[in-house]
Amino acid sequence: MRVVPRSTDYQDEPSIEFPDCTSVDECTIAIVPRYSETDQAGIVHHTVYPVWFEMGRTELLRANGLAYSELEKAGVFFVISSLTAKYRRPCFYDEQLDLITTCSRITRARVEHSYQLKRASTGILLAEGTSVLACVDKQGRVQRTPKFMYPGE
Amino acid sequence: MRVVPRSTDYQDEPSIEFPDCTSVDECTIAIVPRYSETDQAGIVHHTVYPVWFEMGRTELLRANGLAYSELEKAGVFFVISSLTAKYRRPCFYDEQLDLITTCSRITRARVEHSYQLKRASTGILLAEGTSVLACVDKQGRVQRTPKFMYPGE
Amino acid sequence: MRVVPRSTDYQDEPSIEFPDCTSVDECTIAIVPRYSETDQAGIVHHTVYPVWFEMGRTELLRANGLAYSELEKAGVFFVISSLTAKYRRPCFYDEQLDLITTCSRITRARVEHSYQLKRASTGILLAEGTSVLACVDKQGRVQRTPKFMYPGE
Amino acid sequence: MRVVPRSTDYQDEPSIEFPDCTSVDECTIAIVPRYSETDQAGIVHHTVYPVWFEMGRTELLRANGLAYSELEKAGVFFVISSLTAKYRRPCFYDEQLDLITTCSRITRARVEHSYQLKRASTGILLAEGTSVLACVDKQGRVQRTPKFMYPGE
Repeated sequence: MRVVPRSTDYQDEPSIEFPDCTSVDECTIAIVPRYSETDQAGIVHHTVYPVWFEMGRTELLRANGLAYSELEKAGVFFVISSLTAKYRRPCFYDEQLDLITTCSRITRARVEHSYQLKRASTGILLAEGTSVLACVDKQGRVQRTPKFMYPGE
Repeated sequence: MRVVPRSTDYQDEPSIEFPDCTSVDECTIAIVPRYSETDQAGIVHHTVYPVWFEMGRTELLRANGLAYSELEKAGVFFVISSLTAKYRRPCFYDEQLDLITTCSRITRARVEHSYQLKRASTGILLAEGTSVLACVDKQGRVQRTPKFMYPGE
Repeated sequence: MRVVPRSTDYQDEPSIEFPDCTSVDECTIAIVPRYSETDQAGIVHHTVYPVWFEMGRTELLRANGLAYSELEKAGVFFVISSLTAKYRRPCFYDEQLDLITTCSRITRARVEHSYQLKRASTGILLAEGTSVLACVDKQGRVQRTPKFMYPGE
Repeated sequence: MRVVPRSTDYQDEPSIEFPDCTSVDECTIAIVPRYSETDQAGIVHHTVYPVWFEMGRTELLRANGLAYSELEKAGVFFVISSLTAKYRRPCFYDEQLDLITTCSRITRARVEHSYQLKRASTGILLAEGTSVLACVDKQGRVQRTPKFMYPGE
């Protein structure tokens, strides 16, 4: 259950206006693996990649003028419906990585993304993935993806 | 923000009756480190221990007839106020550990625990810790620790 | 890099004899979500499920007389090659779950598993998944899956 | 056990020269909590803070011209000996935080840090912490802190 902190010093960003549509369908973020994300095989543990994928789609959303925290406040929730990952090469502590997130498809109740994780120094592909999100309301009921989530003409 | 799932198959345990008081002040749980909890030094990452400490105090509460999830439903929340840990020897993937949790003190708005992590095979002490929890209500305001949390005479 | 602890109190289990073959192709483990595994939507975060899948296949291996830590000592490593997960219904803090892991296929250099996560109280399916592991040596080179990993006649 | 990947595309940064001494004793890094770092109380889970503390001391080291990964390659390991944290106010998903890390003391075999976590928008203090690291060699034996770790005159 939620603890709603009474802290009065928390200054919410002024509520953003949602844009009319999305216009950016791909973005790249920099990732540097944390020590705590490695495992005893000396590589990043495979369950960390989906954490990064989530960060990637969050930043793609923000690049379109939409903070996911604002969407939640507006009653628009995205819950994950499916996830895939292909691990091609290991990645390591403290190296520079690029995560490229693409919004590949938006339907009435689904948003699909694909991901490519590359070593920044060489551009070599380390992993790929996909996810499907379902749009739900506060009660977890499937709802239509809001219009402003669709790309403009 | 919270997604309240509409799933109707989720059968809540029948709400437990809170006991009049607590009677158990120490309990031991078995811990086996997961692969994902190791780091590239070949040992369990130090930030995992506080996760186990939380599991330890949860089971001590349950040993007293109180599930923390039930407390939350009853509007009683415990948020952590302070944490200490001393790391004496490393622990390893898939080994048997014992975590001993002791409730060392309960005051009007604080519950204090101490922890000892031991290797099960030898009994040797691997780590120790303490935590102080504050009792708050749903809005995060400090409230009195409920009477049933105190030990009986 | 690995810190090889000099701790002399660490009593290794006596090295297990590997069995001639595997004979168990499915096992069920009990899972109870930790508080730290939930997110602010009030459900278990989706990236935790693959952590549980790994625990499931580890226990299936152990049910066949093989501890993964022993395999590593014998120079047999399994690295994940692909992962899929379908999330059907959310799961919650402190509820009883069953994770059923099935070894669906073993080839010369691949081991495939499938997973079903069910609510213990109702048996309802919450999530499904698959993984493919590649067998590699200490240098990360693909090697043949050892004979004892194959099921007996 | 360690899988040493044979991947030939991994271009190690050219080995850095260690500086003669350290000159920076405090640094600030920006932290933005990930969705996966929240819990069902709607706040960041308390076990995430020590993960950030580790990131803070890593960046302080880097500000002194030393990458921790390079230290490990040079046979210098730091293992945590003790940790404390005081949680003053909760922090939230996707908000801007500042983590200030100070190296408070270096002795023959110990490095001590202190941490302050602040809300970037208001500067208010959310949490504080300390850690003590022990300098060990590859076998986990205590060794002297290398001279270049000490501050210059």
